[in-house]
Amino acid sequence: MEPMMEFGRRFRLTLEGASHAPRVGVRLRGVPAGTPVALGPIQEALDRRRPVGRRLASRRHEEDRLVVESGLADGRADGGEIRAHVANTDARPSDYAGLAATPRPGHADYPARVRYGPSADLAGGGIFSGRMTVGLVIAGAIGAQMLRARGIECVAYTRSVGTVDHRPDPRRPLADLRRAAAANEVGCPDPADAARMAEAIEAARRAGDSVGGVVEIRAEGLPVGLGEPFFDSVESVLAHLAFSVPAVKAVEFGAGAAAARMRGSEHNDPYFLVGDELRTRSNHAGGLLGGLTNGMPLLWRVAVKPTSSIAQAQETVDLGTRRPVRLVVPGRHDPCIVPRAVPVLEAVTAIGLTDLALEGGFLP
Amino acid sequence: MEPMMEFGRRFRLTLEGASHAPRVGVRLRGVPAGTPVALGPIQEALDRRRPVGRRLASRRHEEDRLVVESGLADGRADGGEIRAHVANTDARPSDYAGLAATPRPGHADYPARVRYGPSADLAGGGIFSGRMTVGLVIAGAIGAQMLRARGIECVAYTRSVGTVDHRPDPRRPLADLRRAAAANEVGCPDPADAARMAEAIEAARRAGDSVGGVVEIRAEGLPVGLGEPFFDSVESVLAHLAFSVPAVKAVEFGAGAAAARMRGSEHNDPYFLVGDELRTRSNHAGGLLGGLTNGMPLLWRVAVKPTSSIAQAQETVDLGTRRPVRLVVPGRHDPCIVPRAVPVLEAVTAIGLTDLALEGGFLP
Amino acid sequence: MEPMMEFGRRFRLTLEGASHAPRVGVRLRGVPAGTPVALGPIQEALDRRRPVGRRLASRRHEEDRLVVESGLADGRADGGEIRAHVANTDARPSDYAGLAATPRPGHADYPARVRYGPSADLAGGGIFSGRMTVGLVIAGAIGAQMLRARGIECVAYTRSVGTVDHRPDPRRPLADLRRAAAANEVGCPDPADAARMAEAIEAARRAGDSVGGVVEIRAEGLPVGLGEPFFDSVESVLAHLAFSVPAVKAVEFGAGAAAARMRGSEHNDPYFLVGDELRTRSNHAGGLLGGLTNGMPLLWRVAVKPTSSIAQAQETVDLGTRRPVRLVVPGRHDPCIVPRAVPVLEAVTAIGLTDLALEGGFLP
Amino acid sequence: MEPMMEFGRRFRLTLEGASHAPRVGVRLRGVPAGTPVALGPIQEALDRRRPVGRRLASRRHEEDRLVVESGLADGRADGGEIRAHVANTDARPSDYAGLAATPRPGHADYPARVRYGPSADLAGGGIFSGRMTVGLVIAGAIGAQMLRARGIECVAYTRSVGTVDHRPDPRRPLADLRRAAAANEVGCPDPADAARMAEAIEAARRAGDSVGGVVEIRAEGLPVGLGEPFFDSVESVLAHLAFSVPAVKAVEFGAGAAAARMRGSEHNDPYFLVGDELRTRSNHAGGLLGGLTNGMPLLWRVAVKPTSSIAQAQETVDLGTRRPVRLVVPGRHDPCIVPRAVPVLEAVTAIGLTDLALEGGFLP
Repeated sequence: MEPMMEFGRRFRLTLEGASHAPRVGVRLRGVPAGTPVALGPIQEALDRRRPVGRRLASRRHEEDRLVVESGLADGRADGGEIRAHVANTDARPSDYAGLAATPRPGHADYPARVRYGPSADLAGGGIFSGRMTVGLVIAGAIGAQMLRARGIECVAYTRSVGTVDHRPDPRRPLADLRRAAAANEVGCPDPADAARMAEAIEAARRAGDSVGGVVEIRAEGLPVGLGEPFFDSVESVLAHLAFSVPAVKAVEFGAGAAAARMRGSEHNDPYFLVGDELRTRSNHAGGLLGGLTNGMPLLWRVAVKPTSSIAQAQETVDLGTRRPVRLVVPGRHDPCIVPRAVPVLEAVTAIGLTDLALEGGFLP
Repeated sequence: MEPMMEFGRRFRLTLEGASHAPRVGVRLRGVPAGTPVALGPIQEALDRRRPVGRRLASRRHEEDRLVVESGLADGRADGGEIRAHVANTDARPSDYAGLAATPRPGHADYPARVRYGPSADLAGGGIFSGRMTVGLVIAGAIGAQMLRARGIECVAYTRSVGTVDHRPDPRRPLADLRRAAAANEVGCPDPADAARMAEAIEAARRAGDSVGGVVEIRAEGLPVGLGEPFFDSVESVLAHLAFSVPAVKAVEFGAGAAAARMRGSEHNDPYFLVGDELRTRSNHAGGLLGGLTNGMPLLWRVAVKPTSSIAQAQETVDLGTRRPVRLVVPGRHDPCIVPRAVPVLEAVTAIGLTDLALEGGFLP
Repeated sequence: MEPMMEFGRRFRLTLEGASHAPRVGVRLRGVPAGTPVALGPIQEALDRRRPVGRRLASRRHEEDRLVVESGLADGRADGGEIRAHVANTDARPSDYAGLAATPRPGHADYPARVRYGPSADLAGGGIFSGRMTVGLVIAGAIGAQMLRARGIECVAYTRSVGTVDHRPDPRRPLADLRRAAAANEVGCPDPADAARMAEAIEAARRAGDSVGGVVEIRAEGLPVGLGEPFFDSVESVLAHLAFSVPAVKAVEFGAGAAAARMRGSEHNDPYFLVGDELRTRSNHAGGLLGGLTNGMPLLWRVAVKPTSSIAQAQETVDLGTRRPVRLVVPGRHDPCIVPRAVPVLEAVTAIGLTDLALEGGFLP
Repeated sequence: MEPMMEFGRRFRLTLEGASHAPRVGVRLRGVPAGTPVALGPIQEALDRRRPVGRRLASRRHEEDRLVVESGLADGRADGGEIRAHVANTDARPSDYAGLAATPRPGHADYPARVRYGPSADLAGGGIFSGRMTVGLVIAGAIGAQMLRARGIECVAYTRSVGTVDHRPDPRRPLADLRRAAAANEVGCPDPADAARMAEAIEAARRAGDSVGGVVEIRAEGLPVGLGEPFFDSVESVLAHLAFSVPAVKAVEFGAGAAAARMRGSEHNDPYFLVGDELRTRSNHAGGLLGGLTNGMPLLWRVAVKPTSSIAQAQETVDLGTRRPVRLVVPGRHDPCIVPRAVPVLEAVTAIGLTDLALEGGFLP
């Protein structure tokens, strides 16, 4: 059976390829003809998704170079399907094959093998890879340009790594947040906390281990009333997308899980007027009421588990011999994927908001 | 524009009615002809959704009495659309009208008014009500029967209220959990902690305030491999549904948000064999890897904010006069909706799993 | 039996008076003759301890005006016992008397009555008052001047109120932290978060309720090796003092409670050299190893419970009639004592460090 | 200068020896003549303090065998000083010497060297060892017998390891808690959670790493009014002792740090009568009001950092050459000291309560 790789009602994307296939990419429908789409921001977003340490390498644009096959011409969408991809220069299916019979703890190997069968290991396994998020990043970078033309801006950054947490000042301008987060490899908008996070990642790496973290995303300039009550609430659409991204374990909006411990008199955000504009004094709602935007900044957080691949030997079972084995997953492992999840979740936010904005008549 | 009230690919439901309309209910497609569907469990689920304190009242079956219009006959589905509803005996649209111009903090009033216009206040507001979850509960109770016939069982319970938290023993049998949670009005499977939770709710009520909490849902008997990689992961589908439910602010699976603070060597669940069955020693994954079930219990949690309606005066703005006002929301308010969210989130789990099971060929 | 109101080995203080007595104050031994002691900083510290809202009142220096009875002359200590106090202008023992037989939830009334007897209610109750901290603030302001002469500086500030948390940048200079925290009534060194905290306090006040919070204290300029292994570790001495302050429920140093969830490779602070000085890259230790200072900033946090006196009726028992009663505690209540605890815990830090510095030969 | 190793006003103990000296032990004054003191419970407490894995070894009583030198005869105290110790069979000062010039991250090496000088490294370092807690365990086991004769019982257990947390039912009888906690090496009173904790420790060990945790202590049968207001509150005395124990980073009572996020109406424990006895419906106070016991169970928690000694190379500085080095601490390391801290913190509770009970006239 063919896995489903489609999302969206109006801004409709289909992921293509697999981690060990020649390429990974996306097909995208719903971008109106004439929409300005620059390629530079798409390539920049792809660059941010690359592993920490390889980003600054000199061979920069030889990796994950954007190739547009159709749909864009002369800086504008032509109204047809947009197809874009990047090549997989690292694809080594033989490495993966050996692992199929001894499922790696924390990976999709085992349920993928049961679902798609041993002979489908490669096809099945390849689509579980974080590499599939390349297509999300491309689509998100296109959506972000459509939103920006409407005055809507989304910025993601690393909120925490392990137990190191940085909560940015809610008044900090988005452009400043974006610049500061891009200034370090961790993606945290504060240099001191970024250094502490880098230290936490390095400590995990030294231990042959990995560490998780949290990505936070803020969007501003949103109209009031974006979203659909019930099944296409802003929260539903964004969470649906976020939980498609490998390694995501939790999603929260505004006060989030902390709301469960609050009183109503504390959690409710009082209204007041600034000039003619209705605002709330606090923003525990994260900019969302009844599944719709309320004009305050949208704020949400996504918890990412520690990388499943670690250098240490792990307990598992050889499904051939039915014997317990200790497995050492070969290769170099990224001890923390949180910084790489930052552009992916920024893309996810842009995809969801673009789809809802088209649906609700806020775009084009 | 008509709001979207549809969900599902194969087990497809459409919510109908509104809180102030004559009735609320659901239309449901995708239940194969001949599927046994008893009405008792549906009525029981509806009873659990009623406010604490009214459940034990003598006029019990006069409220939220299930009416099936079509699709079910002689204890079986006939293969056509199932339509079912309950009457709204309390509908008082005039109460609501007054509030429309002075938006209640924490409610959808303001974005709903902007989106649907002042004249659409009633139509718009009515679909944001928690009362719409009646349709979810009906559909979920039907899905649960389909799952149960396949050996899959879902149980929801109150995990926390305010700062009182009860984590049940992971080995506790589901039937025992269900019985214990049903034995008190709070829906917590431990009598001592249930009493502490009831005390926390009572403390909020005395303060004219409200309090939030967390619902936890466990499902067992799941096959390995249920779910779709990228975009219909089990997490995506369940989170999508959960964030449609009013007042939900956060969703997490397995170790959830705590995973972000863990190391990989701690978070990865080691595999071992029990007889011929592959199991994991811990269950930080919550029974899910790569968006698919792995055969271990599915475990997820949903954080519910404190009820927005409180007895205290709150700061807001009269949108007519553009003046600040202090609003006292009339009526009796439920100081904690967490116990009522328990059957709703159990229903949501059943709906999502049924849809995915049909999609993946695990049902019928 | 006479309660013990003494603390310290070398910098030795005895609290005097009671909340309903004519005055409250302190006797202090151990300040060497000739030590410069200015009165201005002592009065300023007392002013910071006054309730929010009364600080800015015009009758400012008529409340809690410092009176020095002995030990200080011409801006220096004379080597004898320092005695200082402020008058209690509000003392109304009759108010308190009524409460003695119906113990207030969250207050010391009941155990004090059992311990000291009904006839001793006033004497017993009066020393449980937060007003006793006046003596701590006086002693601490003297200790702080001794430390400052040695290059050691302590600053306390409001770290959180309810669920609003502000973690200052660890590189922020102490003088700047102090100035920023003094710039608002909440005592938080960030204006935006201070406003959110003030809003949280106001929300509690509107609800006739109260809210707790956390005070954080940082000290810099400490020599390496201050403290005594085992029973007079820096942590032991500071925690002993902090837990004497009414309403304190938790104390933590450095990473604190979060350390319990960390791995060693993450928690251990790696050493490196800056010039000739040994430093650590992170400061999870909070500047303390083996109970001694290690030259990094001392960082600790104190959790303060919500004010016990609230405007709502509470369930208690009339100890005379042995009947349940609902008690409304009369008077105006401070909905959050965290801002007032800030100068007290800054004083506590100065007292503990002065005592240990004298003990260890780091002073005078 | 001689470090201070004394504690207590009435139940007065002095720690003796050092980790590399021939023995470690305690001198204890304040036990009235004639007090029954059995040796069995002292030896049992010492056995619980031994490393996990060595406890079940056959050579059991050859390690940490209690030797009483004076003060106890025929099962009773003779009124004189009690002296007791155990031999150090493992003392290897030469191992330690090498580390002195390259301070181990997370250890007291560096401040101890600065404070006591390079030539005092051995003397200085030896008293920072966790081995010094042997004396606490002996004194605590004697205090516990004095308390038990008065109907007061204390039980400590492992509350959490890493992110695995077990909160026992507050109604669970102490004897049952004690038995269940003793039934596994982790010291957690629930077999399933104990297994999860053991797995978390094993995961750390496999990673050449370590993990922290939390010890919780409950005491029941306490009279009302035990403790001294301002400066010898129960909290002050217990925290003072706990922060003397190496690796402790945080201490909290009752609701503890969570109290800072609560409202007063939630945190205050309402009073009611059971027969003639005043009780509270909740126990957020942890049995303590105004520093005195209120007759409800005393409940407190102590957070223990991950073991500082880990198998991984760590960044530090050679204080001789002033060069950065990567240090591998030799020897086998205990990946989690939380289980061993359980009997130590139970002892600390007994010591503090015995001292306060003698002080307040509740004993003998």
